[in-house]
Amino acid sequence: MNQYNPHHFIAAGRNALPVDAGGLPWTGQYVFSSGNLILDLLHNFFLENTARTNKLRVYQMTKDPAAREMLGYLFVRGGVHAVAYGKALEKLTGVKMNEMLPIPRIGNAMFPEAKKYMDMAIHTKLYRQSPEDYRQMDQIWDGAHPDGGMCTVVDGPPMELAGSHVELAGIGSAFAPDYHPEEVFEMAQKLYKKAQNK
Amino acid sequence: MNQYNPHHFIAAGRNALPVDAGGLPWTGQYVFSSGNLILDLLHNFFLENTARTNKLRVYQMTKDPAAREMLGYLFVRGGVHAVAYGKALEKLTGVKMNEMLPIPRIGNAMFPEAKKYMDMAIHTKLYRQSPEDYRQMDQIWDGAHPDGGMCTVVDGPPMELAGSHVELAGIGSAFAPDYHPEEVFEMAQKLYKKAQNK
Amino acid sequence: MNQYNPHHFIAAGRNALPVDAGGLPWTGQYVFSSGNLILDLLHNFFLENTARTNKLRVYQMTKDPAAREMLGYLFVRGGVHAVAYGKALEKLTGVKMNEMLPIPRIGNAMFPEAKKYMDMAIHTKLYRQSPEDYRQMDQIWDGAHPDGGMCTVVDGPPMELAGSHVELAGIGSAFAPDYHPEEVFEMAQKLYKKAQNK
Amino acid sequence: MNQYNPHHFIAAGRNALPVDAGGLPWTGQYVFSSGNLILDLLHNFFLENTARTNKLRVYQMTKDPAAREMLGYLFVRGGVHAVAYGKALEKLTGVKMNEMLPIPRIGNAMFPEAKKYMDMAIHTKLYRQSPEDYRQMDQIWDGAHPDGGMCTVVDGPPMELAGSHVELAGIGSAFAPDYHPEEVFEMAQKLYKKAQNK
Amino acid sequence: MNQYNPHHFIAAGRNALPVDAGGLPWTGQYVFSSGNLILDLLHNFFLENTARTNKLRVYQMTKDPAAREMLGYLFVRGGVHAVAYGKALEKLTGVKMNEMLPIPRIGNAMFPEAKKYMDMAIHTKLYRQSPEDYRQMDQIWDGAHPDGGMCTVVDGPPMELAGSHVELAGIGSAFAPDYHPEEVFEMAQKLYKKAQNK
Amino acid sequence: MNQYNPHHFIAAGRNALPVDAGGLPWTGQYVFSSGNLILDLLHNFFLENTARTNKLRVYQMTKDPAAREMLGYLFVRGGVHAVAYGKALEKLTGVKMNEMLPIPRIGNAMFPEAKKYMDMAIHTKLYRQSPEDYRQMDQIWDGAHPDGGMCTVVDGPPMELAGSHVELAGIGSAFAPDYHPEEVFEMAQKLYKKAQNK
Repeated sequence: MNQYNPHHFIAAGRNALPVDAGGLPWTGQYVFSSGNLILDLLHNFFLENTARTNKLRVYQMTKDPAAREMLGYLFVRGGVHAVAYGKALEKLTGVKMNEMLPIPRIGNAMFPEAKKYMDMAIHTKLYRQSPEDYRQMDQIWDGAHPDGGMCTVVDGPPMELAGSHVELAGIGSAFAPDYHPEEVFEMAQKLYKKAQNK
Repeated sequence: MNQYNPHHFIAAGRNALPVDAGGLPWTGQYVFSSGNLILDLLHNFFLENTARTNKLRVYQMTKDPAAREMLGYLFVRGGVHAVAYGKALEKLTGVKMNEMLPIPRIGNAMFPEAKKYMDMAIHTKLYRQSPEDYRQMDQIWDGAHPDGGMCTVVDGPPMELAGSHVELAGIGSAFAPDYHPEEVFEMAQKLYKKAQNK
Repeated sequence: MNQYNPHHFIAAGRNALPVDAGGLPWTGQYVFSSGNLILDLLHNFFLENTARTNKLRVYQMTKDPAAREMLGYLFVRGGVHAVAYGKALEKLTGVKMNEMLPIPRIGNAMFPEAKKYMDMAIHTKLYRQSPEDYRQMDQIWDGAHPDGGMCTVVDGPPMELAGSHVELAGIGSAFAPDYHPEEVFEMAQKLYKKAQNK
Repeated sequence: MNQYNPHHFIAAGRNALPVDAGGLPWTGQYVFSSGNLILDLLHNFFLENTARTNKLRVYQMTKDPAAREMLGYLFVRGGVHAVAYGKALEKLTGVKMNEMLPIPRIGNAMFPEAKKYMDMAIHTKLYRQSPEDYRQMDQIWDGAHPDGGMCTVVDGPPMELAGSHVELAGIGSAFAPDYHPEEVFEMAQKLYKKAQNK
Repeated sequence: MNQYNPHHFIAAGRNALPVDAGGLPWTGQYVFSSGNLILDLLHNFFLENTARTNKLRVYQMTKDPAAREMLGYLFVRGGVHAVAYGKALEKLTGVKMNEMLPIPRIGNAMFPEAKKYMDMAIHTKLYRQSPEDYRQMDQIWDGAHPDGGMCTVVDGPPMELAGSHVELAGIGSAFAPDYHPEEVFEMAQKLYKKAQNK
Repeated sequence: MNQYNPHHFIAAGRNALPVDAGGLPWTGQYVFSSGNLILDLLHNFFLENTARTNKLRVYQMTKDPAAREMLGYLFVRGGVHAVAYGKALEKLTGVKMNEMLPIPRIGNAMFPEAKKYMDMAIHTKLYRQSPEDYRQMDQIWDGAHPDGGMCTVVDGPPMELAGSHVELAGIGSAFAPDYHPEEVFEMAQKLYKKAQNK
């Protein structure tokens, strides 16, 4: 049970709600959309680094390995977003934004949970899923990455991470039973009807 | 210029903001996620019909053909969502929710902008984009549609609507110039530098 | 002292505030009033069942007998509201909403604190306090109740619950002293003046 | 159609919503409940006078006779509340709060729509509806009223205003048809079914 | 780490945020500005006493001597504000507002942390910092203070409190090092560059 | 009367309220205070340029000379803030932030109402009011200004603007009468008493 905000459990059980750690709901006022491209990019650059700062504090608050594993991955991929906005700003204005990274001044490589993804060069890759769209992405995502390596656009999903779901195989409660969807649905209906007849 | 809410123009120019027609920002409190499947489906059923009611009022407030064209399409496709939630609730509980549709009691077929999509059977189709996922969709989206026709799951995007983008071809300001992306980007940079030297 | 939200004690002492369990104030956005009768009834049906879900979670969170006693009573009387909205929807649209009750699928009879009120048929009664108004209530509140018994409109207050206040008689702090109101007021004034002269 | 806030019409049609004239929803933060009786009374005294100030501005903004009629009545009855809180504060603390009334310094008697109710002494009466409760009301609501007359507690509803509903008699759309409730309900059902069969 | 609201630490570390003890942000709706002088003064009188009530509850919640020291000082100086608004209201309306002070009915002199400032007559002084402005302050801040002593306007800062900063001298972490600002700035830059080269 | 938001007039008359142009109140969530100096400076740099963008839109919306005069002055002085944050970021990180100014890419010199202040070098001056504090300001506010001229810290208020208040001299309603404060206060009291006796 949530020790900070009992409302979360009362309203949502184990479901997620779009609220912050203090229970305040997300608000449309968080969306910045000025119509000025440089200002909008600057806001996103700022936002990615704010997210990083907050995530560093969450890392500091928990020793839970699952949480830290997720944070390590997010440090690396969130870094891709920050660097991409910085590169876009540099292309348009000539200002070398990325020289102020990382914010805060603690590199991703210091966290073992992030370092392992950097060793796989995950921080240098932008994935393109559509066969036709976003073809000009490499106009912005190119050149050196501030954490080392060259920025590359990859066609298709991140295959180097593909095997990681297998890790769940041994954990009973996480392993989905080998039923066809229709069977699962049928069982749900039967359980429901049974409950109804109580 | 926005005659109701000058803040919108000041903050966002011609950009969109996630606010309602009175300027109130969207809030995370709008998300209902109770952890009880029937209650969550019931909320979505209710929500789709609320959206329909509001859109009917917008239709009433405007004679702009572009707005009404969009509303006509949304009446039909929003109807698909309402009917889908109704069918899911019926499968689980046996209650024939869709017999209370349409809400309000004015059918889509009364609006020429919606009628033309119903003549194309657009109200009966649920599109499945992924080759592997959502294969059990037809467990819910099946049988008769309350507005006529049989519910069908279609693999791939709505091809019967594919040609409609051509309509913009003749409108100068809407027609993207025939440049390669790199050329457009280079021109933007040159204009920007030029403005910088003023 | 409130262990979750110190603001409550600071601002209100032992008084109540119209905030949720996380401290968020009630907002007028919770009021749904669309002008469409079926949609408004559907929202209230949904809302009563959401309240029930939340109260079930509160029941689960506490073993305090006073809290559970109150919850047991609310399960039964809140159920009256849900069933009444369901019956109104059925009369208007023919859809048998109440066949999806109870939501969640755990009947009131499972809770001893609620069961005792059902044994008194409290779940089947709607009380009418005014001699003239709401005479057509029995047009909606009639027929079988999904939890058993026949729905009945009762003229006057719930007399079968009238004796329950006597339970407080033996508890000193809960028993109001046998003074006339004017005497109480006079004493308050004297205490106040005395404090003033300190 | 609402010329200021189109959201109101879109969401609620002709229904009312608990929002202010700018569309902001009522919030639980408006409730002041400190647990200190003098502070709570002081807040209510302040609030009644704020309401009066705002209503004076609305009076100034409109020449609509129905709106001004309602405002005139509210000036007089809202004044009863302000004076009652002022008297309660004086009884408890000795401070003659009501000597600062009216706020703003424009008396109710200046408005013809209010003056006619003062001529009926409506500003001096507090109505008590229950045969048993609130018997000590005259401990607070007594003595002279700052606008003239003596404060009186009246048992029962304001009979001197009872005839005023007759004024609506001649207006067709405001006059409820002479049907029995069951008949009205039956007609609603028939209209609904008929719409359903379209 | 904040035990009530983890969001505070995540977003702000050890920085302060303009939120209440439950994490709700300050809102512009707290500003009352009616354009009626008496109503505005009355609101401020009310507000100062609300702040006092809340601070009394915080005093009750903590035994931390630093917190209580600060509260003691605020009781006395906050009292100056309440009394000043009360005097302004009395000058304008003749109503002796300050006869209802203190709210709540527990005098500042009961708290040793406040008593010591009253012994220095800090509760009777209003400080005027500008050589030219606010010269008419003594038109309002004059006569007897409800807690004893005569109200006085003092030109210049509170010199009788000037020595109190010396108390920090012996605490290492609170004592700023004896560097020139440029030196501190240079060191910050060097540390920053060093971190950058890691 | 406010044509967009009638609530403003109802609640505040001609007073100002801390709300945006759409009536939404200021919220403490607008305060960004992360505890990371670079991130906090970056946010302020972003914010000053957002304010500039919004003010440019207001300039575009109005031809009122008083509004444009104020905007012209704010373009120049707001620019000082943006440039100052940019210089602080450059000193700490080496990134030449100010090379992306102005945002939007329309220089202040294009607006006659701003140009006249630039001709007075108002855009290059930071004013220091205290004899002792902020002595190290010139560590950041130095070197060239992107709009021309050298950045200078000035001790004392902006004397070059001192004469501008004289412009109001001929306007009757703006000219304060030549009374001593006590006389003004006495007259207010008399008017108030007179109103009281009506």
